[in-house]
Amino acid sequence: MTGSKDDRAKVLRDTDDEARRLARTLLRSARSASLAVLEPETGHPLATRVLTGLDIDGAPVILVSALSVHTKALRADPRSSLLAGEPGKGDPLAHPRLTLIATADEVARDTKEHARLRERFVRRHPKAKLYVDFPDFTFFRLVPLRANLNGGFGKAYLLSGDDLMIRSPAREAIADRENAAIEHMNSDHAEAASVYANHYCGAKGNNWSLCGIDAAGIDLAAGDELKRVEFAEELTDPAQLRTVLADLLRNARAGQA
Amino acid sequence: MTGSKDDRAKVLRDTDDEARRLARTLLRSARSASLAVLEPETGHPLATRVLTGLDIDGAPVILVSALSVHTKALRADPRSSLLAGEPGKGDPLAHPRLTLIATADEVARDTKEHARLRERFVRRHPKAKLYVDFPDFTFFRLVPLRANLNGGFGKAYLLSGDDLMIRSPAREAIADRENAAIEHMNSDHAEAASVYANHYCGAKGNNWSLCGIDAAGIDLAAGDELKRVEFAEELTDPAQLRTVLADLLRNARAGQA
Repeated sequence: MTGSKDDRAKVLRDTDDEARRLARTLLRSARSASLAVLEPETGHPLATRVLTGLDIDGAPVILVSALSVHTKALRADPRSSLLAGEPGKGDPLAHPRLTLIATADEVARDTKEHARLRERFVRRHPKAKLYVDFPDFTFFRLVPLRANLNGGFGKAYLLSGDDLMIRSPAREAIADRENAAIEHMNSDHAEAASVYANHYCGAKGNNWSLCGIDAAGIDLAAGDELKRVEFAEELTDPAQLRTVLADLLRNARAGQA
Repeated sequence: MTGSKDDRAKVLRDTDDEARRLARTLLRSARSASLAVLEPETGHPLATRVLTGLDIDGAPVILVSALSVHTKALRADPRSSLLAGEPGKGDPLAHPRLTLIATADEVARDTKEHARLRERFVRRHPKAKLYVDFPDFTFFRLVPLRANLNGGFGKAYLLSGDDLMIRSPAREAIADRENAAIEHMNSDHAEAASVYANHYCGAKGNNWSLCGIDAAGIDLAAGDELKRVEFAEELTDPAQLRTVLADLLRNARAGQA
């Protein structure tokens, strides 16, 4: 391993708030991701595709079938990794991506946690309504241990699990109001989601709607597209929600970041 | 594991030629893929993104930096997996994808094999010319052991490594003529690649060119897009190349598959 410290110095940058924000946005705006697990019996790594959602503490969530090899793998060994960030147009390596290193916790049915994940996941993936209640489908939370962010050529950062979590004491209280707040915004302020998406995410179109709210930001959906707006700081009181959503709208209309 | 055989019977289909063709096309037309490796020291699975090419025997090839964690991982343990097939528009799980289970062989520099891989890779990824000769960049062949094909909901198949290899005795002889054949086609029959891409791949535009030829098919490029046309059968003699390319063109113009 001689020289590995020098090698690292060459490629690794100091993790700053901009890197943390990029990492969180990649992970929290993913519709799907590549999952790496250990094949039971052989221990061979396997890469598969999974749909992803987001729990209120920032842990990504996957909905998988018990018939699939990755579910059997996660039940045998919870060590797992998620690659978030799609290649898109142009050089696939020029697009930022995040390698999350995680441990998978299966979510028991008939719990408050399961009901919350189900509701959030189906709002993010409306087609999942067709199979989310099948007896062989199950949720895992992929609890972040650490992550490698690659922001493009020569821009590598290490992140801690804590960098990716939502720690606000208000996260449960915000979750309790989430559904009502989304319904209110999408019906009484129907244009707001498109204004957010256009201004903060560079997204086109006026058919955006809110599909998620948590203490750290909002999720926006239009057809197959998903975008994430991170708040400047985590909310610490659900009463701040109204103000932050109004401020985001006002700043967008004033053309400010 | 009681019941696992029944579970498998429910989801697995018999592997037929259509499944093999889809699996080969997914693997051979990939520009990039997700790679799963085992992190050295911890044995934790890691998912990362890599650029992919194709060797003349059908093995996918990756070009990676020795400074990256996946290169260190593959040097410590060659067990690896590649997920090929991008999610694209619509439901990410409706798009076919292939989980390749492989063993990674690093390719020594200053060998005929390295020169061949370098030439084929750079033709597929012209921007890789900028760094392919850097001393820390290296090629691995990911030799297929077996694969899981997911052709969309409820369409799962198991494939052998052999299903994904190119076994033709003519593969070396075709490789020796590849460069000249591509130059000839792209200059003297410049419209052919677009006819192939339009007809056989449903691709748009008339700016396609050939970027690869092997015993099992041809690779077509237009900007950031890559397509693969598999021949009906592997060529067993390089003299067949002229005929098969002409037949593909004639059939396309006659509107036949």
